[in-house]
Amino acid sequence: MSLVVVGSVAFDSVKTPFGEVDEVLGGSATYFSTAASYFTDVSLVAVVGTDFPDKHLTFLKSRKIDIEGIEKSEGKTFRWKGEYGFELNEARTLDTQLNVFQSFRPKLPESYKDKKVVFLANIDPDLQRDVLSQVNEPALVACDTMNFWIEGKKESLLKTLKLVDILLINDGEARELSGEPNLVKAAHIIHDMGPRTLIIKRGEYGALMFQDNRIFSAPAFPLEAVYDPTGAGDCFAGGFMGYLSSTMNFEEAGIRKAIIFGSVMASFNVEAFSLDKIKSLDYKEIENRFQDFRRLTHFEDLT
Amino acid sequence: MSLVVVGSVAFDSVKTPFGEVDEVLGGSATYFSTAASYFTDVSLVAVVGTDFPDKHLTFLKSRKIDIEGIEKSEGKTFRWKGEYGFELNEARTLDTQLNVFQSFRPKLPESYKDKKVVFLANIDPDLQRDVLSQVNEPALVACDTMNFWIEGKKESLLKTLKLVDILLINDGEARELSGEPNLVKAAHIIHDMGPRTLIIKRGEYGALMFQDNRIFSAPAFPLEAVYDPTGAGDCFAGGFMGYLSSTMNFEEAGIRKAIIFGSVMASFNVEAFSLDKIKSLDYKEIENRFQDFRRLTHFEDLT
Repeated sequence: MSLVVVGSVAFDSVKTPFGEVDEVLGGSATYFSTAASYFTDVSLVAVVGTDFPDKHLTFLKSRKIDIEGIEKSEGKTFRWKGEYGFELNEARTLDTQLNVFQSFRPKLPESYKDKKVVFLANIDPDLQRDVLSQVNEPALVACDTMNFWIEGKKESLLKTLKLVDILLINDGEARELSGEPNLVKAAHIIHDMGPRTLIIKRGEYGALMFQDNRIFSAPAFPLEAVYDPTGAGDCFAGGFMGYLSSTMNFEEAGIRKAIIFGSVMASFNVEAFSLDKIKSLDYKEIENRFQDFRRLTHFEDLT
Repeated sequence: MSLVVVGSVAFDSVKTPFGEVDEVLGGSATYFSTAASYFTDVSLVAVVGTDFPDKHLTFLKSRKIDIEGIEKSEGKTFRWKGEYGFELNEARTLDTQLNVFQSFRPKLPESYKDKKVVFLANIDPDLQRDVLSQVNEPALVACDTMNFWIEGKKESLLKTLKLVDILLINDGEARELSGEPNLVKAAHIIHDMGPRTLIIKRGEYGALMFQDNRIFSAPAFPLEAVYDPTGAGDCFAGGFMGYLSSTMNFEEAGIRKAIIFGSVMASFNVEAFSLDKIKSLDYKEIENRFQDFRRLTHFEDLT
């Protein structure tokens, strides 16, 4: 099957204790699509400026990502600049330039409208619903969001959440959205807002999945060399949704495996700046790291 | 089999956002022994003051803990006072009174000297080696430590580590001991100090085990009601060492299960102040939570 994603395509400038890059390819939808492309066909909805070079579009096409939905607008591409400390936990945003993203009104190409799996990356919740309304009969809808929308557009966000099967956010966002510091209690509150499944991303500590009264905990992969965490959450979502789209099995056992594939893609992504690592993986590497996750977490039925 | 533990028996005064207790039974060896007592016979080495009430000794005996090694000295029992914020991550120590602990010279009863499993809880590394030298032929030696000894008695601590099979410390301590922020790299450095197996406790994020080039990651159990994290690390160590002592299987598969039993005991402990929850568990509850951990972490071979 195939999925449609709406989100940002951007130029990132990133500094970590291990290096620095300037105006490299980034953006939530870029990371998401690239990670998902190892599992399923991806149709991308985004906006770029006239300064966006063809080589990046050529790269996306090389990953068999459908870019018909990338609109080129007069103006400059979205830019983000951030910095990480030695702990690599959280980015300090130095500069955000929305540019063409500011007046973006996503319009889905006809060929996108029958896609069954939809991922609404972290954008204005009004736009998330706008995109969703253009898809005819989605079988699975997931979304991401951030503090900016929780604080500034809560009513609109709550409308979006009513339409969503799976919400993927980080722990701080889950606490802020629910108003509850305990994540188990927060999950109950967020379930009542709409999403049957809540996935809480915890960076270097992995992810927690809450569905009905069941919880699944996945660690992050312990790595010796982490260079740049930018896009890790989006790669997690891409691997996760890509795998679900490839199997169309949305039962709990499938969701658990999808979370591991998401964790696999996030773990590769942090090993290099920009998309340098995930742009050209071998599927065998992905499968091997999936098995590494099994050895990392299982304490019974060891082989 | 049975194990011997040396550590503190204390009075704790603890305040969390969910309540407050004054001079209740605490101390690393108390938590450790109580948790371990569900799995194996425990022989306890510690010192208390003349103010230590018989009811606490009666409780320890009721858990079939051998208290012949608890010395009663003239003076007051060790006291600790701490406070936790809403996140319950780290205690803020308000007061520490070493009292009789200050001049403690542990002396093992004859009956303790042939024990095969030894746990050196977080005390002066000189005393840790002193205790260890009194055990005839230990088959497994594990220890805990803290920043205070890493900073103040590093040479002595390094001598202790050379004699130790398993080191259990938290992530901040692992970083400080190794001088390396990346935990995978830190583990290599600490291996070279002596311990073949390193277990890094990460509080609400669980534990990581490093042995040779293998890593095992165990989550903490997600709980709706956490009242008091005091003693969680010691209960983890108690469940872990207690299980190993009961099986005498120190292979990796056994260590993985032991880590889960440690996590189980820690998860019960934080559900109440002092030892209120772990003082009277049913072994069936422990087994059930072990199975809950399986459902929490496994993504293949689900039953």
